[in-house]
Amino acid sequence: MSVKAREVRLKSRPIGLPAPENFEVVEVSLADLGQGEVRVRNLWMSVDPYMRGRMYDRPSYVPPFQLGEALQGGAVGQVEASNNPDFKPGDLVESMMGWRDGFVALGGALQKLPAENVPSQAYLGVLGMPGLTAYSGLARIGEPKPGDTVFVSGAAGAVGSIVCQIAKLRGCTVIASAGSDAKLAWLKSVGVDAGVNYKTCGNLLDAVRAVAPKGIDIYFDNVGGEHLEVALEMARPHARFIECGMISAYNDTAPSPGPSNIMYVVGKSIKMQGFIVMNYWDMRDQFRTEMTQWIKDGKIKWEETIEAGIENSPKAFLGLFTGANSGKMLVKLA
Amino acid sequence: MSVKAREVRLKSRPIGLPAPENFEVVEVSLADLGQGEVRVRNLWMSVDPYMRGRMYDRPSYVPPFQLGEALQGGAVGQVEASNNPDFKPGDLVESMMGWRDGFVALGGALQKLPAENVPSQAYLGVLGMPGLTAYSGLARIGEPKPGDTVFVSGAAGAVGSIVCQIAKLRGCTVIASAGSDAKLAWLKSVGVDAGVNYKTCGNLLDAVRAVAPKGIDIYFDNVGGEHLEVALEMARPHARFIECGMISAYNDTAPSPGPSNIMYVVGKSIKMQGFIVMNYWDMRDQFRTEMTQWIKDGKIKWEETIEAGIENSPKAFLGLFTGANSGKMLVKLA
Repeated sequence: MSVKAREVRLKSRPIGLPAPENFEVVEVSLADLGQGEVRVRNLWMSVDPYMRGRMYDRPSYVPPFQLGEALQGGAVGQVEASNNPDFKPGDLVESMMGWRDGFVALGGALQKLPAENVPSQAYLGVLGMPGLTAYSGLARIGEPKPGDTVFVSGAAGAVGSIVCQIAKLRGCTVIASAGSDAKLAWLKSVGVDAGVNYKTCGNLLDAVRAVAPKGIDIYFDNVGGEHLEVALEMARPHARFIECGMISAYNDTAPSPGPSNIMYVVGKSIKMQGFIVMNYWDMRDQFRTEMTQWIKDGKIKWEETIEAGIENSPKAFLGLFTGANSGKMLVKLA
Repeated sequence: MSVKAREVRLKSRPIGLPAPENFEVVEVSLADLGQGEVRVRNLWMSVDPYMRGRMYDRPSYVPPFQLGEALQGGAVGQVEASNNPDFKPGDLVESMMGWRDGFVALGGALQKLPAENVPSQAYLGVLGMPGLTAYSGLARIGEPKPGDTVFVSGAAGAVGSIVCQIAKLRGCTVIASAGSDAKLAWLKSVGVDAGVNYKTCGNLLDAVRAVAPKGIDIYFDNVGGEHLEVALEMARPHARFIECGMISAYNDTAPSPGPSNIMYVVGKSIKMQGFIVMNYWDMRDQFRTEMTQWIKDGKIKWEETIEAGIENSPKAFLGLFTGANSGKMLVKLA
């Protein structure tokens, strides 16, 4: 009796903003367990802005998704059957086997979740890749010092919302940009000093200047575009720009002009550094230890936006580009 | 009997490309020597692209030049008279009292030149601020490793020509961009691996790709604009961009679009860092020791382009923006 699972495949490459028809959900039969293999039922999967890049057919730091094949991404699941001594049914595991509700893989593709008293989906967010992205990028590139002013774009997202709170724990003043007053209210409830609603503020530069009149020392960029230009304008000498993402441009069908004030990089001795989380994988243990403690102490909070069912995973993904999520966007699979 | 000197004053703020009428040469009487003061006759003065920035009336890392006042810049001179026990007539000194052929200053504004067997004007170039800029920027931001491919724009200038040679000494492959075949021929004569004449090459990206098909690890930017965009395109993962200058934009009267491919900073984990030489002043002794040895060993060579007479200093300065100089642009004052 074969076991079934459903997976989401890339049906066509999106041009501009992705649409539901770029995806298809397909039922597949899972293979019988070979030596060392484990069958997992996914409970949660992650959708993340960086996945948009993998939908282009171009060389990048990760290979492009292939047409007609299942997408990939972070997932948390539960072992259903195991032919591997390291895993037993009921174990909670994380993997990069998202975009499907069940799968068979060698044990090496799985990591058991630590036995901490946190919801398992936190390992896709605050304790997972977005959390490590926030933690490592801020530490390694931002080098925050008490008293620094930190400007965060996409501040209500999975990464940005953690950046804001870590920066507060490091003694910084935090200015957040987000796309709704509700998001900004939540950010203020976790300690952010000032917020800018970039959709309603009018002139973004004026709005940021009003709340950070002395300028910014650190810019954590999730957005690019106008936010980056404003950050260059507001940067103080020796500012550090943590270039984590530029979601405003991910769906561009033609190149947009870059920041017209890029020359400030020279005159203000700005460090603008891009990164991907794999660069700082060496910080993972330290991150999990410190973040777990912060969570236990109530010092880091998070929000989740949840879509239910594998068939709604494209919708969840598309929502990232319209700001549908507060905090981590997740798909609940079981 | 008062001693006369001539100085160059900023008569009006340039709009766009500076012109001779923005400057005026004025004869002044030097004051008698007070306690601790020294009278110096300048032999050489430096003109540098960064001075253009000081002609705008705006906040920056150095205050703007003031209308009706003498400009400032690096100079090498000889002590004529001294009321300071640390200096005696005949001593060679460097100062920031350029743009004049003589002056009176406290001894603290002067530094005696080391007694090395190099021409005194080298302390305005290869052994001076441009040399330290090349040396420190390449070391601190570029972190060159043997085998790295280094792309240098403005490669025939005072800074670029030294960057090229230091990068060769560090075991790198060096690709140079300059604006004439004669400049490129000289660069190749000192070891540069390949050159691109950006004025005649047609498509700059294609031309750079042809000589650096595997991409670049380090970009030393003196130019900005299209060169920066090409460097982003050609950058390999973890490339370091040393943002020393963007001369292509110094005379812009309106903001130009920035690089349309700035998003590569994220995807390729590029570090783009601006600096001014004062940031790395701590390297000055190490720089002078190592550079002096390289010069003695014939490992570093340099070119000079010389205008004679204080009245020709504006012409020398303007020539920086039309590529009139090969190597260091100097004004010989005596």
